[in-house]
Amino acid sequence: MALDPNCIFCKIIEGQIPAEIVYRSENVVAFNDLNPQAPTHVLLIPTVHTENAAVLAKMSPTITADLFTAAAHIAAERELDGYRTVFNTGADAGQTVFHAHLHLLGGRGLAWPPG
Amino acid sequence: MALDPNCIFCKIIEGQIPAEIVYRSENVVAFNDLNPQAPTHVLLIPTVHTENAAVLAKMSPTITADLFTAAAHIAAERELDGYRTVFNTGADAGQTVFHAHLHLLGGRGLAWPPG
Repeated sequence: MALDPNCIFCKIIEGQIPAEIVYRSENVVAFNDLNPQAPTHVLLIPTVHTENAAVLAKMSPTITADLFTAAAHIAAERELDGYRTVFNTGADAGQTVFHAHLHLLGGRGLAWPPG
Repeated sequence: MALDPNCIFCKIIEGQIPAEIVYRSENVVAFNDLNPQAPTHVLLIPTVHTENAAVLAKMSPTITADLFTAAAHIAAERELDGYRTVFNTGADAGQTVFHAHLHLLGGRGLAWPPG
């Protein structure tokens, strides 16, 4: 099954739930995080329903890489000097939607540790 | 060129600089961060010299995905309930070594934002 009718991110892909889409390709949709933590805080998701980054990496190296290529594209478009990309895997790491999503953050200084 | 003789991470791959290696495959070497920010803080690097995640994703989707599969393997081995994976791209985002490296953090609560 490509999409999960109960998944909020699948609904964004299908346009059933509104989102500020900033990038779209065959394999990737990117939209502004509803709770932005930086001037640029975009979520990049695969257009196929997959629980997390680990499952995605096993299922499709191509789509995994496409997320990072799309992040680089958005960062370049916005002339970000640097940016951070983050996957949370599992509820204990802060994953709240179980459709793999890559956080892209930039446009401000980024502290260390990353949470 | 597969490795860069001036790159500290390439030297770790070749065993010229010591590191606590925790995982090794054809495409990935993982070792403990020298400045750990969590009980598990591992760096996963491709065994080919590439400046950052964006360059790696364009060059090799397979190796990009292998980093995440290796991270999942290490997390499972350590029975982590959840974990965070982070790429810093560019000095302004905190990238200090210009050989792509994925931070794997787990074993404690992880705050938000991620830096």
